[in-house]
Amino acid sequence: MSDFIAVDWGTTNRRAWRVEDGRVADMMHDGHGILAVPAGGFVEAAAAVRARLGSLPMLMAGMVGSNRGWADAGYVPCPATLDALAAGLRQVADDAWIVPGVSTAEGSRGDVMRGEEVQLLGAVAAGLAPADALMCQPGTHCKWARIERGALVSFATAMTGELFALLRDHALIGATMKGTVIDGPAFREGVARSGEGDLTAALFGVRAASVLGLRDDADAAAYVSGLLIGSDCRAQVRVGETVHLLADPALGALYTAAIEALGARAILVDSHAAFLAGIIRIRELQA
Amino acid sequence: MSDFIAVDWGTTNRRAWRVEDGRVADMMHDGHGILAVPAGGFVEAAAAVRARLGSLPMLMAGMVGSNRGWADAGYVPCPATLDALAAGLRQVADDAWIVPGVSTAEGSRGDVMRGEEVQLLGAVAAGLAPADALMCQPGTHCKWARIERGALVSFATAMTGELFALLRDHALIGATMKGTVIDGPAFREGVARSGEGDLTAALFGVRAASVLGLRDDADAAAYVSGLLIGSDCRAQVRVGETVHLLADPALGALYTAAIEALGARAILVDSHAAFLAGIIRIRELQA
Repeated sequence: MSDFIAVDWGTTNRRAWRVEDGRVADMMHDGHGILAVPAGGFVEAAAAVRARLGSLPMLMAGMVGSNRGWADAGYVPCPATLDALAAGLRQVADDAWIVPGVSTAEGSRGDVMRGEEVQLLGAVAAGLAPADALMCQPGTHCKWARIERGALVSFATAMTGELFALLRDHALIGATMKGTVIDGPAFREGVARSGEGDLTAALFGVRAASVLGLRDDADAAAYVSGLLIGSDCRAQVRVGETVHLLADPALGALYTAAIEALGARAILVDSHAAFLAGIIRIRELQA
Repeated sequence: MSDFIAVDWGTTNRRAWRVEDGRVADMMHDGHGILAVPAGGFVEAAAAVRARLGSLPMLMAGMVGSNRGWADAGYVPCPATLDALAAGLRQVADDAWIVPGVSTAEGSRGDVMRGEEVQLLGAVAAGLAPADALMCQPGTHCKWARIERGALVSFATAMTGELFALLRDHALIGATMKGTVIDGPAFREGVARSGEGDLTAALFGVRAASVLGLRDDADAAAYVSGLLIGSDCRAQVRVGETVHLLADPALGALYTAAIEALGARAILVDSHAAFLAGIIRIRELQA
């Protein structure tokens, strides 16, 4: 496999690695996500990466392949494999390609991802997750993906992180959501409370508990986080199941606590290692 | 019973009626909710009502009795009756009283209402609802109340309306929520979809359906309304049950459709008639 630059180019962040003989030789990380690149500015933005990491072919994944990015790289339908992603690469310059996203659709129900697919399938390719797995990528838009025989067969996106931010920044209960979110009694109480299936009432309970002095306001944010993450996990995880989590340590700890409280098991996977394994395999398939 | 002025004084609206011999003789309605009254301005604001309706004793209910209103009228605990509300009146001037709210608390779980209690118990007093009933007041903060032997024994508040507005105004999916919300196929689809217990994933599905062209964007707002109202009703209503709805016609139609889709029955109750029946009874008990 010839040397190349791998880029995980998201909405607000950009990570790039120089890969030599299948191994990382150098890397960079900055805030030049696609929102920081003006329309028509991607050739120049890519040149800046090469100026830093070397003049090599470039293989990109993430929102850079959306209609707000360099070019729309489309979607590969489920069941999706690394082979299908490699076959669907969108060439945007002489030596630059973008990995397509993945879509699923059934009637009026559908879902899309862009960037996560390289991590998910890369984790399996690298042996960080088994060929049959339930995987989760927490965040603003939390992805839950089912892998069968190494293929991404179905997935769902929950707006868990976005909803937390909306409530904190704009809802009446947001006034009390100023405390730190950590795994503790308030978070666990929220996870337990999420089992009653009345999320919108449980959320308003934060206001009532504050008015009546039933809960310390400092605990409200952790309680709401427990409610939302608990609801999210209950909808996706079965008792006794194992979830492979591609998450940073803070969110990973919260999801692990919620998953274990529901009688399932969580295993943390290094998401950067998973991405690199996936994109290196796509590069091999392309060559 | 001596003549008096009844005031339903909420956050953004104010309704007042002159009651003579137990009947409405005149009424007014304006936008002088408590947020439009400056601190210390309630004596003057009440004088404006008397200038319009007559110089009579005044009995008020609603957010005017909150800590942002004229004075904090406190809460009567569940089970609450009109007798208990009358016994708990807070006098704020020589001839002006505010009806207390109602609270419920059990451990760290609790809830509060202020203003709705007069409608709920008034509906029962007027025979608009039976002495054992499940009642619902849809809105920004939707109240679900259980009446047993004429007493308000428990209730829950769901932030259904507030959550809809948050999503429309601030969420990523809000960009597609510009259509009108009516009872139709998209609303019904949302109600049906709400049965799967994964609300945060169902909400993100609006974005995916738009990206993939699976649903007309004009239907997205009605679909989200169906998801939220459907979730709200599923959490509170049992199959075969009857719900007495205190709602305006538009919201009443949506809740009726959702309740009937879940195999229950809805009966619309005139909320102004219910309020008047309740506050007239409190006035009788006070005299």
